[in-house]
Amino acid sequence: MNPITAVERTVVPAREARAVRVPQGRRVSVVDLEGGQVGDVFAFAADDVTEHLSASHTRSATNRLFPAVGERFFTDRRRPILTLVSDTSPGRHDMLIAACDPERYAALGAQPSHASCASNLHRALASMGLALPFTPQPVNVFMRIPVDEEGRLDWLPAVSRPGDAITFRADMDCVLVVSACPQDLVDINGGVPTSLAIDVLPESD
Amino acid sequence: MNPITAVERTVVPAREARAVRVPQGRRVSVVDLEGGQVGDVFAFAADDVTEHLSASHTRSATNRLFPAVGERFFTDRRRPILTLVSDTSPGRHDMLIAACDPERYAALGAQPSHASCASNLHRALASMGLALPFTPQPVNVFMRIPVDEEGRLDWLPAVSRPGDAITFRADMDCVLVVSACPQDLVDINGGVPTSLAIDVLPESD
Repeated sequence: MNPITAVERTVVPAREARAVRVPQGRRVSVVDLEGGQVGDVFAFAADDVTEHLSASHTRSATNRLFPAVGERFFTDRRRPILTLVSDTSPGRHDMLIAACDPERYAALGAQPSHASCASNLHRALASMGLALPFTPQPVNVFMRIPVDEEGRLDWLPAVSRPGDAITFRADMDCVLVVSACPQDLVDINGGVPTSLAIDVLPESD
Repeated sequence: MNPITAVERTVVPAREARAVRVPQGRRVSVVDLEGGQVGDVFAFAADDVTEHLSASHTRSATNRLFPAVGERFFTDRRRPILTLVSDTSPGRHDMLIAACDPERYAALGAQPSHASCASNLHRALASMGLALPFTPQPVNVFMRIPVDEEGRLDWLPAVSRPGDAITFRADMDCVLVVSACPQDLVDINGGVPTSLAIDVLPESD
């Protein structure tokens, strides 16, 4: 078989999520198409999606609050699943905050039909015939949650620019889910959720 | 029925865990009997233990890395489950690090039989006829994980003193599990794991 030489792009429409399979060793980028948009990224072992990228196990391994280029993300079974290989954005990514969910929007006074990253995740998994009895904590790419010296968190608008991309290498065969965060009541997306893209990069790159 | 006027103490032997039921409104303390000992605390809704105290949902609500007296802990369904009502310890508690597990000890070169907080949790739940398909991130009481201004974490020995206690009020009927962390290869327990106690306080207090 010839190597795959074209980028395989999956557009993630605003307020929705998409799932892609990424073979071990391949690189995959999450691209902020219009800028200022948070993506909730989830990763699962392809052969058993109950094994998932875990923020708390990753922190235990990297001894850092936030991801840095060259560092790995680990699963709840402490196996490496992704490596952060490059980042053209200003480098603000969150690994502290839960995915938004229907309960979050109910508390904010939204309609029950408001989209959420948690619901998006489960819908995207279902599109592959997969199901999960829980929602892991995501890695929130482009999400700007600074922490001050007292340990207080702030929620600020994303500063990623149009076309900014964060790129991971798959350290195992995995299922990657990216939700273009529908949050429009807290100002992390500048008030207007927009779309993202998932680019699985050529083998030859 | 007369009110319960005595403390109901459950000793948690070193390297083990115990589970107790705590009715809504009751207060419960985790006591460091000998000092310098980390406790991994898990809390679950009594009527459905898949609903659990979630560190990431708690951070989303409190906007703080670490718990403070007067603040609540929330479940993965964003309901309050515990309130931190008092603390006689120096106040160092962790809400960033995953429970230790067999994979952690394998990586540290320990024997396969080494106890872990994750295994302890599931064994303690099983003693109540309960089971869970995942291990939530615990609140690690007395665990000293400082974060510097660059977001780097350090792992330091606990500084809690003999008899120090952290006290919670149950905001719903819940199952509380406390594991006396068996970590003896990383110096968070001063090298020698010791026992804790769970005190369910009198109704009249």
